[in-house]
Amino acid sequence: MEGFNKISWAERHMKVLENIREEMEKDRPLEGLRIGMALHVEAKTAVLVKTLISAGAEIAITACNPMSTQDDISEALRSIGVKCFARRGMSVDEYYKAIRKVADFKPDIVIDDGADLIFELHKRGQRIRGASEETTTGVLRLKAMEREGVLLFPVIAVNDALTKFLFDNRYGTGQSTIDGIMRATNMLLAGKKVVVAGYGWCGRGIAMRCKGMGANVIVTEVDEIRALEALMDGFEVMPMSKACEIGEIFITATGNRDVIREEHMRKMKDGVILANAGHFNVEVSVSTLEKMAKSVKEIRSNIKEYDLGGKKLYLLADGRLVNLVAGDGHPIEVMDMSFSNQALAVRYIAENWKELDNRVYRLPEELDRKVARLKLKTLGIEIDKLTEEQIHYISDWRCGT
Amino acid sequence: MEGFNKISWAERHMKVLENIREEMEKDRPLEGLRIGMALHVEAKTAVLVKTLISAGAEIAITACNPMSTQDDISEALRSIGVKCFARRGMSVDEYYKAIRKVADFKPDIVIDDGADLIFELHKRGQRIRGASEETTTGVLRLKAMEREGVLLFPVIAVNDALTKFLFDNRYGTGQSTIDGIMRATNMLLAGKKVVVAGYGWCGRGIAMRCKGMGANVIVTEVDEIRALEALMDGFEVMPMSKACEIGEIFITATGNRDVIREEHMRKMKDGVILANAGHFNVEVSVSTLEKMAKSVKEIRSNIKEYDLGGKKLYLLADGRLVNLVAGDGHPIEVMDMSFSNQALAVRYIAENWKELDNRVYRLPEELDRKVARLKLKTLGIEIDKLTEEQIHYISDWRCGT
Amino acid sequence: MEGFNKISWAERHMKVLENIREEMEKDRPLEGLRIGMALHVEAKTAVLVKTLISAGAEIAITACNPMSTQDDISEALRSIGVKCFARRGMSVDEYYKAIRKVADFKPDIVIDDGADLIFELHKRGQRIRGASEETTTGVLRLKAMEREGVLLFPVIAVNDALTKFLFDNRYGTGQSTIDGIMRATNMLLAGKKVVVAGYGWCGRGIAMRCKGMGANVIVTEVDEIRALEALMDGFEVMPMSKACEIGEIFITATGNRDVIREEHMRKMKDGVILANAGHFNVEVSVSTLEKMAKSVKEIRSNIKEYDLGGKKLYLLADGRLVNLVAGDGHPIEVMDMSFSNQALAVRYIAENWKELDNRVYRLPEELDRKVARLKLKTLGIEIDKLTEEQIHYISDWRCGT
Amino acid sequence: MEGFNKISWAERHMKVLENIREEMEKDRPLEGLRIGMALHVEAKTAVLVKTLISAGAEIAITACNPMSTQDDISEALRSIGVKCFARRGMSVDEYYKAIRKVADFKPDIVIDDGADLIFELHKRGQRIRGASEETTTGVLRLKAMEREGVLLFPVIAVNDALTKFLFDNRYGTGQSTIDGIMRATNMLLAGKKVVVAGYGWCGRGIAMRCKGMGANVIVTEVDEIRALEALMDGFEVMPMSKACEIGEIFITATGNRDVIREEHMRKMKDGVILANAGHFNVEVSVSTLEKMAKSVKEIRSNIKEYDLGGKKLYLLADGRLVNLVAGDGHPIEVMDMSFSNQALAVRYIAENWKELDNRVYRLPEELDRKVARLKLKTLGIEIDKLTEEQIHYISDWRCGT
Repeated sequence: MEGFNKISWAERHMKVLENIREEMEKDRPLEGLRIGMALHVEAKTAVLVKTLISAGAEIAITACNPMSTQDDISEALRSIGVKCFARRGMSVDEYYKAIRKVADFKPDIVIDDGADLIFELHKRGQRIRGASEETTTGVLRLKAMEREGVLLFPVIAVNDALTKFLFDNRYGTGQSTIDGIMRATNMLLAGKKVVVAGYGWCGRGIAMRCKGMGANVIVTEVDEIRALEALMDGFEVMPMSKACEIGEIFITATGNRDVIREEHMRKMKDGVILANAGHFNVEVSVSTLEKMAKSVKEIRSNIKEYDLGGKKLYLLADGRLVNLVAGDGHPIEVMDMSFSNQALAVRYIAENWKELDNRVYRLPEELDRKVARLKLKTLGIEIDKLTEEQIHYISDWRCGT
Repeated sequence: MEGFNKISWAERHMKVLENIREEMEKDRPLEGLRIGMALHVEAKTAVLVKTLISAGAEIAITACNPMSTQDDISEALRSIGVKCFARRGMSVDEYYKAIRKVADFKPDIVIDDGADLIFELHKRGQRIRGASEETTTGVLRLKAMEREGVLLFPVIAVNDALTKFLFDNRYGTGQSTIDGIMRATNMLLAGKKVVVAGYGWCGRGIAMRCKGMGANVIVTEVDEIRALEALMDGFEVMPMSKACEIGEIFITATGNRDVIREEHMRKMKDGVILANAGHFNVEVSVSTLEKMAKSVKEIRSNIKEYDLGGKKLYLLADGRLVNLVAGDGHPIEVMDMSFSNQALAVRYIAENWKELDNRVYRLPEELDRKVARLKLKTLGIEIDKLTEEQIHYISDWRCGT
Repeated sequence: MEGFNKISWAERHMKVLENIREEMEKDRPLEGLRIGMALHVEAKTAVLVKTLISAGAEIAITACNPMSTQDDISEALRSIGVKCFARRGMSVDEYYKAIRKVADFKPDIVIDDGADLIFELHKRGQRIRGASEETTTGVLRLKAMEREGVLLFPVIAVNDALTKFLFDNRYGTGQSTIDGIMRATNMLLAGKKVVVAGYGWCGRGIAMRCKGMGANVIVTEVDEIRALEALMDGFEVMPMSKACEIGEIFITATGNRDVIREEHMRKMKDGVILANAGHFNVEVSVSTLEKMAKSVKEIRSNIKEYDLGGKKLYLLADGRLVNLVAGDGHPIEVMDMSFSNQALAVRYIAENWKELDNRVYRLPEELDRKVARLKLKTLGIEIDKLTEEQIHYISDWRCGT
Repeated sequence: MEGFNKISWAERHMKVLENIREEMEKDRPLEGLRIGMALHVEAKTAVLVKTLISAGAEIAITACNPMSTQDDISEALRSIGVKCFARRGMSVDEYYKAIRKVADFKPDIVIDDGADLIFELHKRGQRIRGASEETTTGVLRLKAMEREGVLLFPVIAVNDALTKFLFDNRYGTGQSTIDGIMRATNMLLAGKKVVVAGYGWCGRGIAMRCKGMGANVIVTEVDEIRALEALMDGFEVMPMSKACEIGEIFITATGNRDVIREEHMRKMKDGVILANAGHFNVEVSVSTLEKMAKSVKEIRSNIKEYDLGGKKLYLLADGRLVNLVAGDGHPIEVMDMSFSNQALAVRYIAENWKELDNRVYRLPEELDRKVARLKLKTLGIEIDKLTEEQIHYISDWRCGT
């Protein structure tokens, strides 16, 4: 079955998670626990699901995006006894209904991606042992909740683990966004004016890879320090109000809304491509685009043509995550690290939830570093160790010129 | 219909060919001529076909590779009256049978990609006005025929046009090979040891783009000067007998056979990916691999697992052009330039065949430069012009220090 | 006078500091204060000195490295009334004597680079209003002092300002290290195996620029996460015990000692170049090298040949900061940002010292961001501003899919 | 003595030439011949001189540029009996007088760089066995002479050897131009708008390295195909009339005159840097600049400030080759290859001059490839060899799909 083939292929390249699974199979730290998940339901996620099952958990899962599900994976998961509520192309209503089903499952611990599920639990006042959150966007939402004092249970911000955001957000989003755009459009990147909105970890991954494919990249930012970094990394920096007149391909990765809005679309050239790599589909103002358009048609799989009269704009993947909707999402090896963090976070909550407050925590650094060490080990890469003298030297402030 | 949608999308981005079509629609230089074609039958090729029809030609077409056809395009072509014999996944027998059908069509002029069709005409002793050839591989074969004095008609080596090989072979193959590998495998390129065999125009495009995606690239070569260029471009250079022990992904682009052969496969690591970007499927010794394998299975679309006992090797796209079989082939804009050269070459043959000998010709430089000028024009890019004084200066050898 | 020419040239490119000087000339926040400085005495430093004088301060300055002084700048400073004790090529004794003279000057506030001056004040038990420290190395030493509770006055870790370390350490060290090595050796970087020890901000700047010059870069690290980043940035990663056999040029940037030591030198190839870009001259074990050598001779300005019998190693700049000893140090524009942070830090101490504890502080974020904003302004670059709706959106956790 | 130290350092890194010297010491192919040379008189050139002496020649040498001589090298050459007429900072009159002295020496064979010496011989009607020419500029002049039928003796266009222009012009000029600009200005390249005029081998080397240092590069061209290549290599392409308004640093490498002329200087920003990397000092219109300026002063070694009233432009190295005047010229390893070609060319002329016509010849390909093979050998790099089957395959046009 195609779904299982995809899962085995992913497993072959998720060696860190394999190591963690072997430990968990022995220790069974999730014995008897119910895990509710809202993640992109594709092959790599299935490997995480299987890992948690090996650790003793019972699983219910749904999608964290209406468009990112791969149905053959859903099917494969159901066939091994997982309650999977995801289906590609759900309406927003169906999407939330599925989220509610996971909440109904009465999970002890929750793994979320964007915090829709965690928020559903809060609306219900449903307390659990804890949750872990995958994305920058979700963590921002959760920290706002923490600041307002409304958080009902502890959350591990898996996104903020070094072995997550430095790799998944940067190299993962970088590669997979390029991949999604190439698949959707078959267009040449070399020589193209690509505008990347946002120079956070995702944005800089995308900008770096676009440059690596020969594009001429413009970066827009709201943060002065990131703007300077983008400049010194060799990119042009300007406000969107100017970039919108020049760009041929636009990619948003800001975590904010209406980054590309009516005033920009009005000024864009005919034939421009609009793509989003941020978590939610609000970065490009799709609703505005729909109001502005004289007609809309799907002209190729994952490309919608908006005829504005006099010019046409092309929106990829309905403004949803282009890497997941038009591609297979992040490369496997990157998710190996991210999901290893997830597995360790779930175990950490299971074993320490009584000591945790209703706050947003980082994954303990020793677990973060464990993922890095396992990754190096599975790659067969050795690194240096500090000598005794060196350990002494860096802690001894008396050593000078 | 999906095929037509793909074709219109391609048309939107083939502005040079559009310009040429407009000229040909007026002049009808191919009125009453039969054009036989053997090309990858996908959307961009269909735009070339339509251009030639606009110029007055009647067309028969087949594939130049058993695996690269997109069936919805074949169907679309048939529905507009083109004799199209291509089907994805033909056997080698069926492939040659289709080639023969194009020869039976009694073409006046032939467009070939790899020279299989031209060779079929030679076997039959079937003389035509002339042919044009798309690939490095085909041109090498044709020059060998020219040297032996067996060419029956003139051939334009479209591959050797500057606006073809500098762009299609380099930026086109570079991007599309990456695209094909990412689609087939969903693997991370960043940090991977990628071995690129061959540092010709295709190889250097691939190496450059792999580096752009964060890979650590090793180049193998047989030519000492290219080897030095690869080195100074920042790549490691070593013989395949050493690279085979280190690489994680291998990509061949040499135009030669058995570049990866038994002695190399024996030494490879478990889990290695083998891909080919050269015209024929002989660069990786697939037949040897089949003999060596204890078992073979397709484990994901376009990935075959060869179990050699103790380790597994993964061959993409059966060792055929990974960019065409696992992806959509070259980016549209690059084929715009290549196929503009083709259209101009066909017109040139139609108008000048009586003056041509049975030799391999380059496309006249003024046509080559015309493609470049049209490309810049359609991009809206202006460049400098020499002043009178400058024209004088560079031709006057008396001006010194 | 050459010194003044160099200073005016630097001033032309230090527009952020010029803005800050204009403010300080009006406000005179350092009126009547004595500032003691230990910095590399070269043109850009002189611009900082002049800025502090404009703010009302009296200055004594010495070098923070025995080899990095440019004597024409010392002379120029003296001619405008600065007590300058620096001279190029001082012995270590003379170096410390000069440090003591600055301490004798009874400074109210101190600017240090490496913390030798701050440490001298501590040996004397000499309390001052506060100090600011420029380097990663110095901050590490000071934080160790803070942990042990021995700090006698507050210190601003200017190094830890985002507009300092993200730019100075990365782009500054990156460029200037390349510059120093090229000047000293006239060797080609393209195709060279360059080993960069350390992938902190300095190390990654160096690695990035070496790659940008066509080198093939190997990174060594002791930190597993940085090692993975280096790998995914496309570099080879291995322990020094292996890299030492392969490298042709070695550059240390770790902040630690004996990173290249006897066991490595034994295994190195003939003709290897050794350079250091870390603050102190202990990263390459120069003393060991001297013991190992049969003979030592300076064979070109800033290159010493160590004949180990059978092979020769070449040490640049006596193992001291190659960018400062063999070049002109960091590019001007980068020091504009770093020294603007210094000027703001000194003003901050002058105005707030009574509220500060004897701890290591970061520069307040609003000052850090002020530097960034001034830098963008002086470059004429505009960036986006969040709209009301966007500000609302990112703080509202209720907005979901 | 400093000159000899520099020469020995160069010798250490010119291993190809060392191999060739060993052969020539045995064969003495230049026994009794007089070689006249006009080259940049610096350390690497001295190694070539010594090689030719070892082969039996007697040498007279002068500079090929009034500013590029290093006087300590001149002195060292004189002390070993070479007639050296070069001095740094000669006037144009003195420069030509020195050229005439080399002609007076009655050379049998001449090595030239820019063709000033060859042209002097032509003015005199002085026939010799042959000459070799180093630069693109010189070869252009000589081919114009050949076309007009005025060449008096055969010339080897050493510039056109693959192991010369692919390496020296590209990686050599690329690195050394960056080096010269950094030394002269101490300015940051990261984030700078750099305009590179010309995308020939030199220009693309410079553009590539500027990008590698983090600059944002704009390319200007007169050739449509090169313009497209620059575009797809990720650079912006526009005419100088637009680029002049945007650029912060301008670098010319066109081989033509007045590439930056009054109309451009008028539109430039205040503070712009002008540098030339082409052979002659006519690419930036220095004479126009002098007419336009209200005042001119040297404000730092190798930087002249032209005050145009309202803005100041900064010319490096008087518009002469910035890499040679402000730096040490090309990296040693690159000149090893170029000068090996020179040595082989001189030997080839000495041995074959009777068979040569008064034409411009390429160096025979076997000598070109010999340099490449020796370079790989001295680097310890092995490459692949074609198997018997592979040699057969690429010459056999019958092998198809």
